[in-house]
Amino acid sequence: MKQIDKLRGLMNERGIFAYIVPTDDFHGSEYVGAHFKLREYLSGFTGSAGTLVVTLDEAALWTDGRYFIQAERELSGSGIALMKMGEPQTLTIERFLLEKMPEKSALGFDGRVVSAAFAMRLEKVLKPKSVALKTDEDLGGAIRENRPPLSKKPVFELSESVCGMSRCEKLARIHEKMRAENAGCLAVSALDEIAWTLNLRGGDVDYNPVFLSFMLVFADRAELFAEREIFSDETARALENDGVEIRPYNEIYSALKSQSGAVWADLKAVNYRMKCSLADAKIISKQSPIVMMKAVKNDAEIDAEISAHIKDGVAVTRFMYWLKNAIEREKITEISAAEKLEEFRKMGEGYLGQSFEPITAYGEHGAIVHYSATAETDAKLEPRGLLLSDTGGHYFEGTTDITRTFVLGELSDEEKRAFTLALAAHLELLGAVFPKGVRGSTLDGIARQGLWRHGLDFNHGTGHGVGFLLNVHEGPQRISWRTANDAPLEAGMITSDEPGLYFEGKFGIRHESLLLCQEAEWLHGGFLCFTPLTCVPFDVEGIDKELLTDAQLTYFNEYQSRVCETLSPHLPIEEAKWLFELTKPL
Amino acid sequence: MKQIDKLRGLMNERGIFAYIVPTDDFHGSEYVGAHFKLREYLSGFTGSAGTLVVTLDEAALWTDGRYFIQAERELSGSGIALMKMGEPQTLTIERFLLEKMPEKSALGFDGRVVSAAFAMRLEKVLKPKSVALKTDEDLGGAIRENRPPLSKKPVFELSESVCGMSRCEKLARIHEKMRAENAGCLAVSALDEIAWTLNLRGGDVDYNPVFLSFMLVFADRAELFAEREIFSDETARALENDGVEIRPYNEIYSALKSQSGAVWADLKAVNYRMKCSLADAKIISKQSPIVMMKAVKNDAEIDAEISAHIKDGVAVTRFMYWLKNAIEREKITEISAAEKLEEFRKMGEGYLGQSFEPITAYGEHGAIVHYSATAETDAKLEPRGLLLSDTGGHYFEGTTDITRTFVLGELSDEEKRAFTLALAAHLELLGAVFPKGVRGSTLDGIARQGLWRHGLDFNHGTGHGVGFLLNVHEGPQRISWRTANDAPLEAGMITSDEPGLYFEGKFGIRHESLLLCQEAEWLHGGFLCFTPLTCVPFDVEGIDKELLTDAQLTYFNEYQSRVCETLSPHLPIEEAKWLFELTKPL
Repeated sequence: MKQIDKLRGLMNERGIFAYIVPTDDFHGSEYVGAHFKLREYLSGFTGSAGTLVVTLDEAALWTDGRYFIQAERELSGSGIALMKMGEPQTLTIERFLLEKMPEKSALGFDGRVVSAAFAMRLEKVLKPKSVALKTDEDLGGAIRENRPPLSKKPVFELSESVCGMSRCEKLARIHEKMRAENAGCLAVSALDEIAWTLNLRGGDVDYNPVFLSFMLVFADRAELFAEREIFSDETARALENDGVEIRPYNEIYSALKSQSGAVWADLKAVNYRMKCSLADAKIISKQSPIVMMKAVKNDAEIDAEISAHIKDGVAVTRFMYWLKNAIEREKITEISAAEKLEEFRKMGEGYLGQSFEPITAYGEHGAIVHYSATAETDAKLEPRGLLLSDTGGHYFEGTTDITRTFVLGELSDEEKRAFTLALAAHLELLGAVFPKGVRGSTLDGIARQGLWRHGLDFNHGTGHGVGFLLNVHEGPQRISWRTANDAPLEAGMITSDEPGLYFEGKFGIRHESLLLCQEAEWLHGGFLCFTPLTCVPFDVEGIDKELLTDAQLTYFNEYQSRVCETLSPHLPIEEAKWLFELTKPL
Repeated sequence: MKQIDKLRGLMNERGIFAYIVPTDDFHGSEYVGAHFKLREYLSGFTGSAGTLVVTLDEAALWTDGRYFIQAERELSGSGIALMKMGEPQTLTIERFLLEKMPEKSALGFDGRVVSAAFAMRLEKVLKPKSVALKTDEDLGGAIRENRPPLSKKPVFELSESVCGMSRCEKLARIHEKMRAENAGCLAVSALDEIAWTLNLRGGDVDYNPVFLSFMLVFADRAELFAEREIFSDETARALENDGVEIRPYNEIYSALKSQSGAVWADLKAVNYRMKCSLADAKIISKQSPIVMMKAVKNDAEIDAEISAHIKDGVAVTRFMYWLKNAIEREKITEISAAEKLEEFRKMGEGYLGQSFEPITAYGEHGAIVHYSATAETDAKLEPRGLLLSDTGGHYFEGTTDITRTFVLGELSDEEKRAFTLALAAHLELLGAVFPKGVRGSTLDGIARQGLWRHGLDFNHGTGHGVGFLLNVHEGPQRISWRTANDAPLEAGMITSDEPGLYFEGKFGIRHESLLLCQEAEWLHGGFLCFTPLTCVPFDVEGIDKELLTDAQLTYFNEYQSRVCETLSPHLPIEEAKWLFELTKPL
């Protein structure tokens, strides 16, 4: 490939034997802007996750199970080997480099797009071969033609009433945590942490309402590294008044170089160049204090989220009503259905846009966990089988993420059984009660046990944290038995509950609501429980009641009737009547 | 106290400001022999767990929740402060020392009874105060009068047919693991690992059939550091033939000093003096490879365990029959009941002794989790309420650990409800199905969820690994949601299943069987499940059937009928008839 040859040319000039191109931006964001898509440009592989390693005589790309088929196709003929992550015979990147790199050769990458922790692991692993790291240059960027510039979308302010705390109060709480660690400075590179702290939102990353920036918090002030032009004069003045100085985005590295005291910087989060710039400082590497503040929603945030979920519930429920009626008389495809749902969302006050790329998957497409309909694959919906719809929105009052699997007509026994068993798993987690300190890996056993006893399982997490008008995926909590040492659930956290079942070539099912963790007040022993935020009925036509336990039926009926009560006042009369019938106790 | 004053005298002479006396032997054993009971001698506190710290002007003892009441009583008037571990206001030992120790003072302890990992943590924590460690002397031992000598009980050999592998095969497997880590030597200090590897058992630690020893495994031979007199000439010759050289117990430290290559020594397991003796070696600190080999039982070990559990089942079931009949007509106390059970066990072929200190607790005593009846507390059993019996035996074919809660007569509704809910938790774990890789912390959610939903819980683990004619508690797996990063379950592991419910001042309930982890062969997806090894019926008189789900009832009825089938041929006819009635499906 031409691009790889060009890259090798630059590598040769600089005496670099191997060069790494990951998918990240400077902030470790889940999604990256067009400017950062160098791995895609160099390899031709368009998936959202993957790392390319080019040596002078080989090239290989690591990606995970979601993308094996796509990567195989897109890499075919490129001379780039596909490295299937998670398969036992596959070398890790570290091991690959250790085997291939000659003694005393050099490894290159752009130190801004690689986490400090990963770079340090590479340093350690390659030490026996005395490999040098060259991380000051962006060689991928250097050869890229017509590179899109860095995004500079305008920033907007959230009202304090919705956020529950002013940025000054948030900074004061951060200062407290810094004092407890004797840190004179906190270096923040995660875009959602900066946005949350400052009660600002932006549009520099697809689906994530964040803006490109770094932040240094000092004992009594803060510096925000971002392009001045993305702030209105009013916002810039407000920041200044609150002790937040705006400095150019790229000055973060020189600002870090001037630090000589104790700097709190999570090496798992900050990029390698940031770490290198802290050469004169004493680094305290610990999870940023903002992670937990952001994860545990305050009362105002919770109230706002409830209101956002009612608006979202109205939109998705109206879509469901439309879908179930229109399926017999209109031509609907996956893409047109997704557009219709987006129309309903747009009717909601304060709707800002989608919170992730929607998945609208009919029939066998439902079995592809990260399916995204294209003009070529766009299936026509028929009055039979299942439509899996996993979508979400950002509102001024919060972020939603919901999956419902709609019954379009006749179902096979197999479809009905799977629909019900996945629903049972969803309900077990929704109804879970647990003492403080319990982690998501323990809760996942409660969710999955019913499936496992039937020899069934699904190959993704059961739940992830969700931000407040922020990233739809956030930590620190998650619900997955595979995650050891995960964070305990706390009252105020919002987590998804999304078990599924997938039958390749046949159909897929997923049921997802967002759950708010709360005190189980009716028990007097410090127990926690969940309350669903998502307010959209399940399609009862998919349920085989015999497969649900009494407890599961109770949770289900309670949920459905609460949805009816909450949404009815906001629906046209015909739709409210239909919802009333739909949500009658089973 | 006189002993503490004497200790301070020695500390003063040596310029030591603070001295630590833990409860451990040289091997980190769970139970320690009389020789090692210095903490008890110095403090007067007789519990099985606790650490004494004496400074020149203060003394404090750390112990856990099991012993708060006992320690308060035993320490009263001693001038030793009780430090309640796990309570939020309690200083850790590290923090206590950091606060109390003057700059550049010295901290002392016997480096042989403190794990390397703990000592290194102390080194690190106390570094800001430039504290020196003095760890070469056993000051507690120096002042102890009439100190019992080290135990030197005779060692016996197990037949290869029961062990499934010769010691040469086991050593060969260890060599393989060492090669993979490039380790020229493996240093083993855990007594059960040595006993398992060499197919030898001893009697130097109460309830644990192990012998005092260290072992160094080299690429093609091994050295066993133990007193020659504990081996018969025949065993000593056999060891020599298999390439295992016997050297004096105390020579381990000089042997380690002579090591200069890569030595595999788990710093969490070996003592601090061992670590210090490896000053010239490159230490590979990783869990010993023997841990997993020992935990995953081979087919011969499993067959033997099944047979041991039938013998044990006959004994406990005959005890149950006797108890339920004798309660109306004989005077029985907690201690006499325990003796009676031991009599039944002794009738079993190959019975070697108890596998831990039995707990036989009537009525309110049942609520004390680690209750041990004494002459003063020994309660008379009445024909009402519940008797909790947690006992176990060692047989030539394996180790058992079983708890049954027996109904002696009328029960309150509260007792019956608790009996049934704890049984439901037991059955949920027994019936669990899960994919490979799942850890006990996830399984614990499955076991406890039913209790949590009722606002109930119990303050101990749900399960622990059990050795093959070895320690009744072994790792690496356990079933406890509190344990992060625990080991996944594997087919061949034996783990207890022992949920309980405890009502202080009223009664206690625990239901415990040992479960063998196996492939769930009827499912074709690599799932694991459990098969109970323990073969003793539950007392159906405690059950309120309405509180069990259909699935739980099925597990229960299957278990009871399997017990009946297995034991009947081994029981007198009257008892077999009674068992048949008792185990009829509910």
